[in-house]
Amino acid sequence: MKVRRYDENPLISPRDVPPFHKGFEVIGVFNAGVAIFRNETILLLRIAERPKNEDQDIVKAPFFNPKTKKIEIVCLNKNDPHYDSSDPRVIKEASCGRFIYLTSISYCRVARSRDGHHFTVDDQPLLYPSNQLEMFGIEDPRITQINEKYFINFSAVSPWGVGDSLATTVDFMSAHRQGMIFAPENKDVVIFPEKINGKYFALHRPVPRSNGSPEIWIAESDNLLYWGNHKCLIGLRKGMWDDGRIGAGAVPIKTEKGWLEFYHGASQDDRYCMGAVLLDLNHPDQVVARSEQPVLQPEMPYEKDGFFGNVVFSCGAIVEEDTVKMYYGISDTSIACAEFSLNEVLDSLTTCT
Amino acid sequence: MKVRRYDENPLISPRDVPPFHKGFEVIGVFNAGVAIFRNETILLLRIAERPKNEDQDIVKAPFFNPKTKKIEIVCLNKNDPHYDSSDPRVIKEASCGRFIYLTSISYCRVARSRDGHHFTVDDQPLLYPSNQLEMFGIEDPRITQINEKYFINFSAVSPWGVGDSLATTVDFMSAHRQGMIFAPENKDVVIFPEKINGKYFALHRPVPRSNGSPEIWIAESDNLLYWGNHKCLIGLRKGMWDDGRIGAGAVPIKTEKGWLEFYHGASQDDRYCMGAVLLDLNHPDQVVARSEQPVLQPEMPYEKDGFFGNVVFSCGAIVEEDTVKMYYGISDTSIACAEFSLNEVLDSLTTCT
Repeated sequence: MKVRRYDENPLISPRDVPPFHKGFEVIGVFNAGVAIFRNETILLLRIAERPKNEDQDIVKAPFFNPKTKKIEIVCLNKNDPHYDSSDPRVIKEASCGRFIYLTSISYCRVARSRDGHHFTVDDQPLLYPSNQLEMFGIEDPRITQINEKYFINFSAVSPWGVGDSLATTVDFMSAHRQGMIFAPENKDVVIFPEKINGKYFALHRPVPRSNGSPEIWIAESDNLLYWGNHKCLIGLRKGMWDDGRIGAGAVPIKTEKGWLEFYHGASQDDRYCMGAVLLDLNHPDQVVARSEQPVLQPEMPYEKDGFFGNVVFSCGAIVEEDTVKMYYGISDTSIACAEFSLNEVLDSLTTCT
Repeated sequence: MKVRRYDENPLISPRDVPPFHKGFEVIGVFNAGVAIFRNETILLLRIAERPKNEDQDIVKAPFFNPKTKKIEIVCLNKNDPHYDSSDPRVIKEASCGRFIYLTSISYCRVARSRDGHHFTVDDQPLLYPSNQLEMFGIEDPRITQINEKYFINFSAVSPWGVGDSLATTVDFMSAHRQGMIFAPENKDVVIFPEKINGKYFALHRPVPRSNGSPEIWIAESDNLLYWGNHKCLIGLRKGMWDDGRIGAGAVPIKTEKGWLEFYHGASQDDRYCMGAVLLDLNHPDQVVARSEQPVLQPEMPYEKDGFFGNVVFSCGAIVEEDTVKMYYGISDTSIACAEFSLNEVLDSLTTCT
């Protein structure tokens, strides 16, 4: 399958975006929700900022205080054996392996483009932490357009876990919160762009503690706010590129052959690729076909290196006739785009029996 | 606070119930949903059965095969270092601490009583594993009566995690599945018995893997099938009897002072007690008061000893005027009942500020 990466990749990098917070630096501009609005390509960027830090023995952890409505910073001693800071993204409690702080705080800003290659980034956030369930930030938005309204769902990260929350916008100037739609632990939610047999559907990715794996589930809804009838849809595949964790990526694309979902799969050593799964057009809880090999995998230096390397991670794509324009975050650092043929992807899938 | 345990406790024990499966033994009759139906007290018992086993080196793990619709048994070598069978209820993968099998399989049978003390247990299950998400069984039912219909929710346990599913009955002779309402990991769901400000509400208990604790959340719904607007309601309290894990117990009881919820709290060494929390009558996501001390705790020998000892765990209570009749599972083995004064409980709570 032929993949054409944009010459301008990465399209937007941390150096292109001034920090929103004084004394902070932008370390990531990635994992963007994608939409078309008034003939422009919209990327709703996840921006990760961290407090500047000169002291190598200290790790600074920013968080949003819902009482003061301000970002505050906790300083931790990197050498304290209670903490495990081996993963650059988080500070874990050494005893149980669960994280207690993030090293950066994320929120979302809009980038706009006429040609899909060159973007201008808004100064102000469209989505910014606003409550207790967003104390550690807002991550990895997806955008589903239904009629004139855009439904934005995102990971809401807090000391109470990582859940998935919803907001709506009609103008990409302001957004309105609609509450948490999937309770912790859940992320990588994508909402289908139309009702199917009278119901809305979403893919989601619960991460249970006592047993089970990070796999893709499907749920249904009447109103996009309340969800139920949860079913496990596709699982990990032992020994393959997606044997560590999987999660939905782009908003499902309607094709004649079924709903095409580009999902991410990580191996057990955290190499993130994008693959595809085809779901029945009228019964999206039925799997028709799935890719044996990744559609896109980290190959270029800018995809292999970065804050958290070896990651391609898409939250949205645009389809124009047979061309898929997949925007994807690279190594938790920047945003890139690649094009490929929709029909080539569909033809490459292996039928599930 | 005065607690009057029934003289007949335990009311129903494993020896009172013949196994449903040939070659199995009943090891638990506990954690029952409670309802009043046609002037009888209904206990929807969780029955745990395990395959008889003479071989001390082997552990047998039963599961429901959704393809054959039959219970099958896996035999594991207890001395295999890949497995950890230190918890009698489960077999864990030693490397990650997550369970891969249960040592028993649970389903639900109805017990009926005219006086609330002496029960007759149905021969046939009302709820029995029926699909992939119930492969390891059905546990800890709660019953909410809304008009003439009884909504039964229960833990659905499978290799894909522990979620909470819904069924309905009008006669306690047959029940109809309504799908999984809370995706893994989630259990200890209780549904409020009426709409509040035009919405249904439920308490639930997610258990996220990456961070957060097993605490009580609240969600809302239009139709009892689809749930959203998830919010964290009450958390663990360091150094107290409920500092390990908490979860809703009985279906919330409407009082003049607010919605009274009897919840279970476990300490970090797995001693399970029942406490209470009072929620605002019109805004059940607002906490009014909470018990400093347990309302009920394991004191009697039958509460301290058993398959998994030191546990009192209620899934339902009946209120008659000022008397609360709380049915509760003891030590994952039997079922008991205790009475106390509703007003004494309400007076004992400490106002939350």
